Amino acid sequence: MSKAEYDAFLAGCPSRQLLDRITDKWVALVLAALRSDGSHRFGADCAGDPRPRRYSELFRTLPGVSQKMLTQTLRALERDGLITRTVEPTVPVTVTYEMTDLGFSLHEMIRGLKSWAEAHMDDVLANRAAYDTRVG
Amino acid sequence: MSKAEYDAFLAGCPSRQLLDRITDKWVALVLAALRSDGSHRFGADCAGDPRPRRYSELFRTLPGVSQKMLTQTLRALERDGLITRTVEPTVPVTVTYEMTDLGFSLHEMIRGLKSWAEAHMDDVLANRAAYDTRVG
Repeated sequence: MSKAEYDAFLAGCPSRQLLDRITDKWVALVLAALRSDGSHRFGADCAGDPRPRRYSELFRTLPGVSQKMLTQTLRALERDGLITRTVEPTVPVTVTYEMTDLGFSLHEMIRGLKSWAEAHMDDVLANRAAYDTRVG
Repeated sequence: MSKAEYDAFLAGCPSRQLLDRITDKWVALVLAALRSDGSHRFGADCAGDPRPRRYSELFRTLPGVSQKMLTQTLRALERDGLITRTVEPTVPVTVTYEMTDLGFSLHEMIRGLKSWAEAHMDDVLANRAAYDTRVG
């Protein structure tokens, strides 16, 4: 199957399932966290260069994520080749995660979503209030 | 709360929930379908100008979507102000959906995801096979 033949509009196409995988809040947030410089308030979240992060750093950067969800997300990203997982034989072992070039290309695509949500939050809240008044 | 203070990294921030809402396969596909010119194979899916679509057109463009899921997605997009729903008093009534400027700005952001999934499907499949061999 050549690249041009994948079509996520089609239910049976594997790219539909991949689209499902990458359109995920935790994927967006984990990739942003791998890019974050740590001081992630006030729009600075995409300012840093990609660099290896420990599991514990990622866990701290993403309040509200469960260990299970973070572990599952990292494993899926690793399996898809979007991040690498490196284990150093320290005591205890040091496990770090880092974006691959493929992960970086996805991140470039979805980093805008987090910013979009933040920038348009007020508009969306106003639209919801108007809708609820209208529909009752 | 000023715009700059929304931060989707924070569990309690409304923009976290909005990010969850917009990072959704069906949101990406419905917005793409509202932009589609109907001949959506081979990368032509984003070629058309946004124009009103009937529910039945959207349903046909998105094989595998359930009526419930399509209806829920359209209602959420309407409530957030990303699409408008217009009812014309024909017999039977004609209901059409159209992107708003806000929806268009989101679509511009996420249209790349569908293309990314299609373009990198082969890479991801190869990565998965390598991972499964490695991890066993």
